[in-house]
Amino acid sequence: MTGPKPIPIHEIVRHNKPNDCWVVIEGQVWDLTEFAPQHPGGEGCKYSSFLDVGYSGNETMKVILRYAGQDATRQYNEVHTLALLPTALTISKLMGKLDTINSIWPTAQDTLSQVTHQKKPPLSSILSSHDFEIAAHSTLSKKAWAFYSSAATDLISDRANKSFYNRVWFRPRVLRDVKEVDTVCMIQGVRSSLPLFVAPAAMARLAHESGERGIAKACSKKGIIQCASINASYAIEEIVSAAPADYPFFFQLYVNKHRPSSELLLKRVWDLGIRVLFLTVDAPAPGKREADEAVRAGDILSTPMSGTSATRDKTGSGLARTMGTYIDPSLSWEDLVWLRSFWMGKVIVKGVQSVEDAKRASKEGIDGIVLSNHGGRNLDTSSPAVLVLLELRRHCPEIFSQLEVYVDGGIRRGTDILKALCLGATAVSIGRPFLYALSYGEDGVEHLIDILRDELETAMRLLGITDLSQLHSGLVNTGDIDHLVPSTQGDIFTKRGLKAKI
Amino acid sequence: MTGPKPIPIHEIVRHNKPNDCWVVIEGQVWDLTEFAPQHPGGEGCKYSSFLDVGYSGNETMKVILRYAGQDATRQYNEVHTLALLPTALTISKLMGKLDTINSIWPTAQDTLSQVTHQKKPPLSSILSSHDFEIAAHSTLSKKAWAFYSSAATDLISDRANKSFYNRVWFRPRVLRDVKEVDTVCMIQGVRSSLPLFVAPAAMARLAHESGERGIAKACSKKGIIQCASINASYAIEEIVSAAPADYPFFFQLYVNKHRPSSELLLKRVWDLGIRVLFLTVDAPAPGKREADEAVRAGDILSTPMSGTSATRDKTGSGLARTMGTYIDPSLSWEDLVWLRSFWMGKVIVKGVQSVEDAKRASKEGIDGIVLSNHGGRNLDTSSPAVLVLLELRRHCPEIFSQLEVYVDGGIRRGTDILKALCLGATAVSIGRPFLYALSYGEDGVEHLIDILRDELETAMRLLGITDLSQLHSGLVNTGDIDHLVPSTQGDIFTKRGLKAKI
Amino acid sequence: MTGPKPIPIHEIVRHNKPNDCWVVIEGQVWDLTEFAPQHPGGEGCKYSSFLDVGYSGNETMKVILRYAGQDATRQYNEVHTLALLPTALTISKLMGKLDTINSIWPTAQDTLSQVTHQKKPPLSSILSSHDFEIAAHSTLSKKAWAFYSSAATDLISDRANKSFYNRVWFRPRVLRDVKEVDTVCMIQGVRSSLPLFVAPAAMARLAHESGERGIAKACSKKGIIQCASINASYAIEEIVSAAPADYPFFFQLYVNKHRPSSELLLKRVWDLGIRVLFLTVDAPAPGKREADEAVRAGDILSTPMSGTSATRDKTGSGLARTMGTYIDPSLSWEDLVWLRSFWMGKVIVKGVQSVEDAKRASKEGIDGIVLSNHGGRNLDTSSPAVLVLLELRRHCPEIFSQLEVYVDGGIRRGTDILKALCLGATAVSIGRPFLYALSYGEDGVEHLIDILRDELETAMRLLGITDLSQLHSGLVNTGDIDHLVPSTQGDIFTKRGLKAKI
Amino acid sequence: MTGPKPIPIHEIVRHNKPNDCWVVIEGQVWDLTEFAPQHPGGEGCKYSSFLDVGYSGNETMKVILRYAGQDATRQYNEVHTLALLPTALTISKLMGKLDTINSIWPTAQDTLSQVTHQKKPPLSSILSSHDFEIAAHSTLSKKAWAFYSSAATDLISDRANKSFYNRVWFRPRVLRDVKEVDTVCMIQGVRSSLPLFVAPAAMARLAHESGERGIAKACSKKGIIQCASINASYAIEEIVSAAPADYPFFFQLYVNKHRPSSELLLKRVWDLGIRVLFLTVDAPAPGKREADEAVRAGDILSTPMSGTSATRDKTGSGLARTMGTYIDPSLSWEDLVWLRSFWMGKVIVKGVQSVEDAKRASKEGIDGIVLSNHGGRNLDTSSPAVLVLLELRRHCPEIFSQLEVYVDGGIRRGTDILKALCLGATAVSIGRPFLYALSYGEDGVEHLIDILRDELETAMRLLGITDLSQLHSGLVNTGDIDHLVPSTQGDIFTKRGLKAKI
Repeated sequence: MTGPKPIPIHEIVRHNKPNDCWVVIEGQVWDLTEFAPQHPGGEGCKYSSFLDVGYSGNETMKVILRYAGQDATRQYNEVHTLALLPTALTISKLMGKLDTINSIWPTAQDTLSQVTHQKKPPLSSILSSHDFEIAAHSTLSKKAWAFYSSAATDLISDRANKSFYNRVWFRPRVLRDVKEVDTVCMIQGVRSSLPLFVAPAAMARLAHESGERGIAKACSKKGIIQCASINASYAIEEIVSAAPADYPFFFQLYVNKHRPSSELLLKRVWDLGIRVLFLTVDAPAPGKREADEAVRAGDILSTPMSGTSATRDKTGSGLARTMGTYIDPSLSWEDLVWLRSFWMGKVIVKGVQSVEDAKRASKEGIDGIVLSNHGGRNLDTSSPAVLVLLELRRHCPEIFSQLEVYVDGGIRRGTDILKALCLGATAVSIGRPFLYALSYGEDGVEHLIDILRDELETAMRLLGITDLSQLHSGLVNTGDIDHLVPSTQGDIFTKRGLKAKI
Repeated sequence: MTGPKPIPIHEIVRHNKPNDCWVVIEGQVWDLTEFAPQHPGGEGCKYSSFLDVGYSGNETMKVILRYAGQDATRQYNEVHTLALLPTALTISKLMGKLDTINSIWPTAQDTLSQVTHQKKPPLSSILSSHDFEIAAHSTLSKKAWAFYSSAATDLISDRANKSFYNRVWFRPRVLRDVKEVDTVCMIQGVRSSLPLFVAPAAMARLAHESGERGIAKACSKKGIIQCASINASYAIEEIVSAAPADYPFFFQLYVNKHRPSSELLLKRVWDLGIRVLFLTVDAPAPGKREADEAVRAGDILSTPMSGTSATRDKTGSGLARTMGTYIDPSLSWEDLVWLRSFWMGKVIVKGVQSVEDAKRASKEGIDGIVLSNHGGRNLDTSSPAVLVLLELRRHCPEIFSQLEVYVDGGIRRGTDILKALCLGATAVSIGRPFLYALSYGEDGVEHLIDILRDELETAMRLLGITDLSQLHSGLVNTGDIDHLVPSTQGDIFTKRGLKAKI
Repeated sequence: MTGPKPIPIHEIVRHNKPNDCWVVIEGQVWDLTEFAPQHPGGEGCKYSSFLDVGYSGNETMKVILRYAGQDATRQYNEVHTLALLPTALTISKLMGKLDTINSIWPTAQDTLSQVTHQKKPPLSSILSSHDFEIAAHSTLSKKAWAFYSSAATDLISDRANKSFYNRVWFRPRVLRDVKEVDTVCMIQGVRSSLPLFVAPAAMARLAHESGERGIAKACSKKGIIQCASINASYAIEEIVSAAPADYPFFFQLYVNKHRPSSELLLKRVWDLGIRVLFLTVDAPAPGKREADEAVRAGDILSTPMSGTSATRDKTGSGLARTMGTYIDPSLSWEDLVWLRSFWMGKVIVKGVQSVEDAKRASKEGIDGIVLSNHGGRNLDTSSPAVLVLLELRRHCPEIFSQLEVYVDGGIRRGTDILKALCLGATAVSIGRPFLYALSYGEDGVEHLIDILRDELETAMRLLGITDLSQLHSGLVNTGDIDHLVPSTQGDIFTKRGLKAKI
Repeated sequence: MTGPKPIPIHEIVRHNKPNDCWVVIEGQVWDLTEFAPQHPGGEGCKYSSFLDVGYSGNETMKVILRYAGQDATRQYNEVHTLALLPTALTISKLMGKLDTINSIWPTAQDTLSQVTHQKKPPLSSILSSHDFEIAAHSTLSKKAWAFYSSAATDLISDRANKSFYNRVWFRPRVLRDVKEVDTVCMIQGVRSSLPLFVAPAAMARLAHESGERGIAKACSKKGIIQCASINASYAIEEIVSAAPADYPFFFQLYVNKHRPSSELLLKRVWDLGIRVLFLTVDAPAPGKREADEAVRAGDILSTPMSGTSATRDKTGSGLARTMGTYIDPSLSWEDLVWLRSFWMGKVIVKGVQSVEDAKRASKEGIDGIVLSNHGGRNLDTSSPAVLVLLELRRHCPEIFSQLEVYVDGGIRRGTDILKALCLGATAVSIGRPFLYALSYGEDGVEHLIDILRDELETAMRLLGITDLSQLHSGLVNTGDIDHLVPSTQGDIFTKRGLKAKI
């Protein structure tokens, strides 16, 4: 990329039409005219390599066209990353560099960057994940907060995810020598200094410029694993490169309607040395998150993620919804054959919510399952993971020796982690708290990990154990939620003729 | 009605006595003197055809007399409709037309029209039925809001109707192909694009001029069925005519103390092609809705509906109560013979609240039942319908193959609908949300239907089903309310001699 | 009492010492010097006839002495009544009449009469017993409100009394002919137009000058029975005389430590034609009502009731506590023999809270029991009556054919009444609401009775019954509180040696 | 200590370095240079006699150095006591006395003494332990309030401790002769006028200058026993000396990492005549009390207790945490042998939270156990003691005849005490309320005892008993929490391979 020619603004601004579309990004002037504007939505496009991170072509184009003849650097960087450009565009499309002399562009409202920065407490005063949440609430942009914190419709699942852990009581043992405690565990054969990993949350750059890279740096320092999201703000190569060589990562996939996109992406993931794949299965349709829908997104938000217009439609402005348009709703158990035809690594099914599906996963030879209602963000009143954990224990206890079980949703304390492990989980997955912590950058993430470790060690000592292998169900009392465990499976009640054939 | 003679105001105002009563409606001057002022209340009257929409003669008269010698157009139109006039009056009573020259009347306070119109959010910002409710609260007149939103005494049933759905958890299945989902269902053999119909709520014109006609238009566009209330603001003919020819309707009946009135009315209903009758049985006495009683009604409110004076009596100003004075509290199962002597269509009993009555309905050959506590508006602490649904499942599961079961009360979300269907309901009935949506007119109603459809489809996909026939009880977990299902029937405990014969 | 001689103020004020004590009441000057100031507390005194209404002699004296040489009319009248004077004093102690010329006394703070009278809504706007409570809260004096509304310590029982009724669901029956409903019932063979009676609440004059007499008038008009309290503001003769001759009353007794006082009192009660005695047994010690303790009583409050000083002691200023000093804490089942030696009428034991005591009452030949935790005013966290009712049904159903069972506490709605009757009660007892209604005088009490009757009739119709004898347990669903019914009796767990003999 | 020489301030202030450190306390000038600044933390030190009250040497030193060359009297006295000096220092280290002429020191912020003293209500208006808490909240220093009132993380256990008592219902018996009631009980053979003792709470001087000595005086007057904390503000000798000779005390111990310190301390305790030792076992790690961490401690707070710097570290400023650094986390059941090798008295294990540990305690010949979750201050969501009490009753009822069982946590009312005793406890332990009462000094503590006695006697009378030996489980109804009692022990569920060996 040596010496592209300078192009003045008055030249650039003329290329502002679908059939003649230039865009400036980081001082480079790109001709995006051929970038698939005519491709039908959801059918893939020839620039599928651009779409590896999860959106279909024509929607991306719609947004790009909005910046035709303009500088889109800031918007692009908010959620995207320059590293994608070489993949997405051939070098021949680079027309030159921005002539920075007389570089005057019209002002744009950037709602995303409306981070108030007021009232952000010093990191040293943050004592818990709750403190991080409070700090994030007051300092993130409205849209970022809405996107991260929102959950489906009436927030029943979201709240239950948290409250159900509070309804499990401990039964500690005393007078054990707990001088030394060890929190190390193995997750899919990978060593972790704590029985938790970072959930594959989307678009971390909304919280901090360093995004998923900042999380990666902190995790590698602290010895825990990050599961990178396909909807990350950075390309997987960039995320991985933020950590020391050979530091292990997990990767989370939504299967693209255009299957070759997914295949190509997983090829890249494999080449980076990643061997554990989390296949998210609980989002065939986007959840209805009204707080997210209600906050109008800035243009820059929709651009890199889904490409759909930010114009409010009848349903709202949901970032999560528009971001998920590429996800294939037809994905089924049968597609595991397809997945394994090109993915040789481990497969974790993320989003199991019933003993029936847990059994099916085991039968299919899946390596692990994440009991999850997607943080309460998809189907409201779907069960908190801890309830599904109890359901498995009651109706299918053998599952725990067949595959590893993880839970996510509502875990905010070291005690929550211990409870999940007492009930059979191998580890837990934590999402939102890491995004909130990231608002302090890499330091925030490290501080959160320190807090969780301290809480976990304290709780282990007070519970009377020194090693996670000593945890068992006799250390907790689930009497307050036991009546919520479905008492029988197979008791299905159908009525005849609910729907006539038409 | 060609060329009635002009009558000046000074002539009209002299006919302002019980024995000489003229009233102006829509520019027409009517002599209502003979209109039954002397008939005893509740005993029927010779102008029973006027009373088909549900009130007895002498109370109507009391109000009419209040407008003796005046123009009552606005008041009449608020809740009534001109179409009733030809039925109620012989043409010979039309005395002429209002001489509009020098047409000066005294100002009247119209409390009904005190719609503030402030803070009404744009329709595009409405994301849920809750948003409609909030908008309606701030924009409807105080009396309209009180009438629509109020419920019996301490609101226990009203709140439980909603909260009980939140206490039912989903047990979704993942990795099903849910690309295409189909929400069509059959209700009494009638095709509906959604498993819901509009409940027979009263007096929709309080929300919007278009009233039930606006609802009809929206429903016919969206392919769902409206059950017209006998207490509608418009005559059934007008409501039906708002939709395309042959578009199906249901009709809801309160049986009049004066039975011939009901017979005549159902004759009209039948002639309009309506074949499904909802017989409301849970309102032999008006519920005590204190919010409704506490807001003083304007004259115009009581006029067309019940004819009773709006003067506050010891009990209050309840619109619902005064509107229901014509309802026959002696109606019993035995009267079904009478009903079937002239109604050849299907009969749905609306208001069943126990397995005992459900069985009785089935034994009587009823085509369907609505499990309902009347939106919590009648007997407070009567059971939410979802609880009765569980009661039927436990103690009389065969009922679901004998007749169709519907539920109403508290359904606000697509997820609520799915839960009811999982537990055996064929469809649900939704009332208040449609009235709140109607405050935006026909567009509001369409928007609400779109929202519900979107929520329903989303929930179906996330639940792992594509067709309503796939729903079954194994997809929900009722553990949180199972203990509330009466464990035994027939366990009745009586004491001797509670009351001596006197 | 013809022509007592006028005595000037300057003469009166000189008799202001214990050994020379005159007091002016209603213009009459009494010499109260010999009125037992030296008698030890709690041991009875020679003027026991004065104490029939329930306090011991020396405490009365302490207060009387505070008014030595003064006019105590207003204070006396607040809670006492002139009718007691002839009983308490011999006529020879009447020294003369107040010379009203130059009748100037020093101003006194009368906290009792600090009734704000602001914000009292018109009676016609009162729709429920809750409205009466709200009105009373804003218009009664602080002390009166504190005394009436307060309950023991943390108010757990007080609140549960109300909320437990809300946790019982109805199971209505529809399509019954409910045109005519009859609310008449028999209570101990006495006809009542409603299945309720007025609880024996103390000191009604705090709410309104007419006091218990006003209640009596309203009750007799409406055909319900008043149970007069031994702690009434008026003597039983005065209360009875407020109603038509032969109108039935009940009477409630606390047994006096000085038993002859109780005997004399019951003699008077019997002579008035009263044949049903409620013996309160749940108050051997005064409950700790902190709201009552915290509001400093005016002198005039303590004067007639307990005679104790209103000076705040370490425990507080509880009116209920100081009023109960005469109650015999040693009363036991064995004393029923004593009671029946002079009382030939029926005996109801008020305050039963366990199946064990219910059985004992039945064994003792008691005519009825009131399941009661004293309105939550005595022992906090004692069970709501509805729970004890369920306990009796489960463990001793035969009790309901052996004696009549009543409940009190928390009954605020017609639906509450019906629920109690469905579960076996013959009638309910209602206290505080009548006191609150009395703040409007006799009219208020009538209005409350009308409200309760209307609520009851409405609920009966909506429940599908026309007569109280049709009530049975199958009409209610107690699933939400069934787990609170003690599952076994006799499962008593003791540990050895809790207390060593000392 | 006759006649130490006067030393002027200008001389003192020069000795302000680690290797030359003088400090003035109560007018005496001490050379603390050799006082172990170089000793490693947690390893014991040669001045271990100084550490008897519970902290390690080098942390003490860090703080002492902060006052090098200054007068630390006020800071020292806040939480320490002069009586420790002869123990801690050899007399040779006393350099002289402060020359009070020209005795001018720089002003210091004393956050501890920022007791507002505003709004403190008169003692006579305090009616309950809740009132004491409210008063303390408004008058204690922020740090003192934070330290006393705080509990672990989300306060679930803290709140449940209180609320669970409210969920136990009484089943009173009536018509018992309850004229005389007796509240005396025996605790470990020691007579107590009430079935309660003062819990071993730390640092009472934060509430009032008299500290634990004030509590001792009040207790001895009222005939109840104080269990002195090892973390008391006064030395045990001083506390004991505040009560009459031979008045009985209990003593509570945290075992020091440096075992000889504990041995020496217990020797002193034994010599004072104390024969009952409470060994706290539920605090091998400090609980995470965020309210405590969040309030910055003044220097003077950290000085005498833990010696750690008050500089906020990443975790916060928790006083409880820094105070507990000397506690040995390796203490186990096996160490009971060690304890008994030099302690001949009774041993109570404080902090049992499961039936398994209760059985173990019994097997080990322990004399009593305190069921406790440390006031909710250590492991959040550990079970309230009342739940463990029910667990013992269900799974190990014989335990109550093998040892004495006490409970603490959440006891605020006389009724709470009775409930614990009904369920098998011999007595209860009360902590925070005594500290709050102490803010009024000795009088406050006496007042609290009076309140509790009054509440207890009232509740006994209303429950129908006269003697604690009459209490049994049939007098309470635990139906609302029975489902929370673990149904089985031994049902432990483990998964294999949670943690690989590394």
